[in-house]
Amino acid sequence: MRPSVLGSAMRPSASPLVSPWRFVSLADGSSLDPLQAVIESGLAEGLTVGAAVRLTGSWVASPGAAQSHELQVREVKVLGSSDAKTFPIQKKYQTPEYLRTLPHLRPRTPLNALLLRLRSEAVTSLTQFFARQDFVQTHPPIITSSDCEGAGEVFTLNPANDMAGQPGKESADSQDSFFRSKKYLTVSTQLHLEALAQSVGNVWTLSPVFRAEQSDTSRHLSEFYMLEAEMSFVDDMNSVMDLAEDMMRQLGTDLYQSDTVKSLLTRTPHFGQDLAPAGEVDRRWQGLMQPDWPRITYTEAIDILKQHEDKFEHKPVWGAGLQSEHEKFIASTVGKDRPVFVTNYPRDIKAFYMRPTRGPGSEDPSRVTVDCFDLLVPELCEIAGGSMREHQLEPLLDIMTRQGIIKSPSETASEDDSGNGLQWYADLRRWGCPPHGGFGLGFDRLLSYLSGVQTVRDIVSFPRWYGRCDC
Amino acid sequence: MRPSVLGSAMRPSASPLVSPWRFVSLADGSSLDPLQAVIESGLAEGLTVGAAVRLTGSWVASPGAAQSHELQVREVKVLGSSDAKTFPIQKKYQTPEYLRTLPHLRPRTPLNALLLRLRSEAVTSLTQFFARQDFVQTHPPIITSSDCEGAGEVFTLNPANDMAGQPGKESADSQDSFFRSKKYLTVSTQLHLEALAQSVGNVWTLSPVFRAEQSDTSRHLSEFYMLEAEMSFVDDMNSVMDLAEDMMRQLGTDLYQSDTVKSLLTRTPHFGQDLAPAGEVDRRWQGLMQPDWPRITYTEAIDILKQHEDKFEHKPVWGAGLQSEHEKFIASTVGKDRPVFVTNYPRDIKAFYMRPTRGPGSEDPSRVTVDCFDLLVPELCEIAGGSMREHQLEPLLDIMTRQGIIKSPSETASEDDSGNGLQWYADLRRWGCPPHGGFGLGFDRLLSYLSGVQTVRDIVSFPRWYGRCDC
Repeated sequence: MRPSVLGSAMRPSASPLVSPWRFVSLADGSSLDPLQAVIESGLAEGLTVGAAVRLTGSWVASPGAAQSHELQVREVKVLGSSDAKTFPIQKKYQTPEYLRTLPHLRPRTPLNALLLRLRSEAVTSLTQFFARQDFVQTHPPIITSSDCEGAGEVFTLNPANDMAGQPGKESADSQDSFFRSKKYLTVSTQLHLEALAQSVGNVWTLSPVFRAEQSDTSRHLSEFYMLEAEMSFVDDMNSVMDLAEDMMRQLGTDLYQSDTVKSLLTRTPHFGQDLAPAGEVDRRWQGLMQPDWPRITYTEAIDILKQHEDKFEHKPVWGAGLQSEHEKFIASTVGKDRPVFVTNYPRDIKAFYMRPTRGPGSEDPSRVTVDCFDLLVPELCEIAGGSMREHQLEPLLDIMTRQGIIKSPSETASEDDSGNGLQWYADLRRWGCPPHGGFGLGFDRLLSYLSGVQTVRDIVSFPRWYGRCDC
Repeated sequence: MRPSVLGSAMRPSASPLVSPWRFVSLADGSSLDPLQAVIESGLAEGLTVGAAVRLTGSWVASPGAAQSHELQVREVKVLGSSDAKTFPIQKKYQTPEYLRTLPHLRPRTPLNALLLRLRSEAVTSLTQFFARQDFVQTHPPIITSSDCEGAGEVFTLNPANDMAGQPGKESADSQDSFFRSKKYLTVSTQLHLEALAQSVGNVWTLSPVFRAEQSDTSRHLSEFYMLEAEMSFVDDMNSVMDLAEDMMRQLGTDLYQSDTVKSLLTRTPHFGQDLAPAGEVDRRWQGLMQPDWPRITYTEAIDILKQHEDKFEHKPVWGAGLQSEHEKFIASTVGKDRPVFVTNYPRDIKAFYMRPTRGPGSEDPSRVTVDCFDLLVPELCEIAGGSMREHQLEPLLDIMTRQGIIKSPSETASEDDSGNGLQWYADLRRWGCPPHGGFGLGFDRLLSYLSGVQTVRDIVSFPRWYGRCDC
């Protein structure tokens, strides 16, 4: 806050109008707490809720108890007037559900401005972290040729003008004409990142990804940002987990002392149930900054869960995925406040590109696992996931053929115009592919967790989910 | 390059096989120049073109003239073998056109690895620049509700599974069901950025944007990254131009001394016509770092062009857009090597949201202009564009209604479920909108210009354009 401030919103106080002074609350998005300005009533015309103003005056010690200083105003200029009677964000408590119906205005509330700053500071911290580690930041494509990466339902796209001439009806031809075949919005940049990692070694991206799932939960959006990193010449999955852990710990350390996070943790009880309690959110930040996050295998996790079987609605069974209740139990009992890596899940419930586990403990043919991990945090469950990638050609072609992803192991990408578009991914192994692995982190989920909002819809400015895409 | 290096590609030299030694070129993406390794013939099995290897040895002074040092190898491990006979990137000159057919392998060539590094370093520089200026980095939405922002043809999207049950045919209902109405891929984040700027003052983003234009030029892609910034409480367009200029000058200063740009400028003539001459590329960097970029009005530009009318295929006429030949002439004669701002274009050829010019020189009713600018560079023409935005409600509603963007000036977003989805943008003016402006920079175009590649298709890893979307 600055003494002579440009404010984006002013709210008249409840002081009686007979007073020769008006007290107005001024906000410019830099703080949860407003700045108090004291203005002669005669100057206060147009200072309605929501107005954009320029006030000039003196920054003086305040006689009031609520603030140390206040702005004594000698000049008022209304830069953008506001019809306070119709302004949808009145000066009172508004529920997150209501604010969500106004995504174009919601950012103006102090909490939402703070969340915008949190996102920005997180991106800067991550950019610096990866630059120091000599990781190359990349822009993998959003429009992709494959719908079968196994990460969920996809959106397809058409050029709009194809439809203009054929209202209500269109042929497969017209749909596919722009790119000559059907194209999709990416569900994960991983496969393309692997190609880029073969160029410069270690790469990362913070990219929008898309899922056309008809889910209506606090953890899912149709459009969200994913942070993905890929390391080359790495054979031990611990290196990939080290990277994920170091990155998140650095993020915690960078931001915990910032004004933004301090505001988040010292906010007034005003926010009620909209945010997790400040003490709880503080524990999340503290957990992020702790060293030595536990790493247990899926098999160990199942053993732990079985000892507490009666606590769960779904019985823990080796071979089945972990339910939310299982993940929560593991996160809170094994991790305490620290995130927990659960590694080496059964092959049959994981993606085709993951490398099968070898070595001691992996001999049982009825319990084939892959070198992968999920990173679990209390309350929110999975926040990141990664794996070693199958880097050998024959085993990859084998599983891709068995799963119907490619037609036959013999084709190469250049012969595969008619395929579903993933021969190129197998081809990466044909000409010199080192062992490699990486992870993806749900960036919006992480910010939800670290801010304490109740749903990922409240951390994204213009959230899109099944049935909703406003503005 | 490191003495004991992990290389992603090795190429055998042409040395006679009778020698007890083999010389191999090793690349890890960090340099245009390969590292020379000297290996006993007996150890060299599997060291084929493209293979991924781990070599251990001693870093010693080289007797050869081509390098100061070389790696004398005592241990070889092939981590990923390569079938050199079928490897599509043989050890010889490959045209950019040919490499473009192999986007998954192209990044492995030294030049393309360098271009990946250039992009990464540019993103880091820009992130730091905006963080220092206290601009908030944001993630505006990719899926949007409007197809009429005036920036070109748009892509529409469907959830893929809607089509599964209805091959070759689908009803308007099924297309629109996921989000309840038709949605599009963003052509520019500007309108949403304006909403976010009202929250925290100054914002920016580096976001993918999409155009479904059927153009086949060296400057256009269907998917590309745009850097957009928006400033609040700014009334003088010079502030916006200052920001664009300062940002690009800082980018130039940060990167010019980097190993990446040094490599780009000291490369061997090997690249032939694929890159603009090094001296030319150097002048582009120097121009970026120069102070005081010229700012002339469109009207002044037309006057200059008219003095050289006989040079142009298209006659310069006040009221018409500037042709490429005009922009090139202005950029090279007015700017010399510096970029040139051309401001205040005629209203009728610019977007609806631009603020009409007021004040001295804008009195002629037959020559109404708007407060906007294009930033021109020699050879590439327009690289950025910006404007002041109409921040007053009535004039904006007026032009939006006249252009058919909204149905009537009286509705607000909440009443406008049936509209084309831009009432929310007008509503931003209803409740306290300060003067503001911003710009958008074609990030891939800028990197093309600064690297000297012949087409923007060669600066993007997986380029998408009309008819082409590989991998």
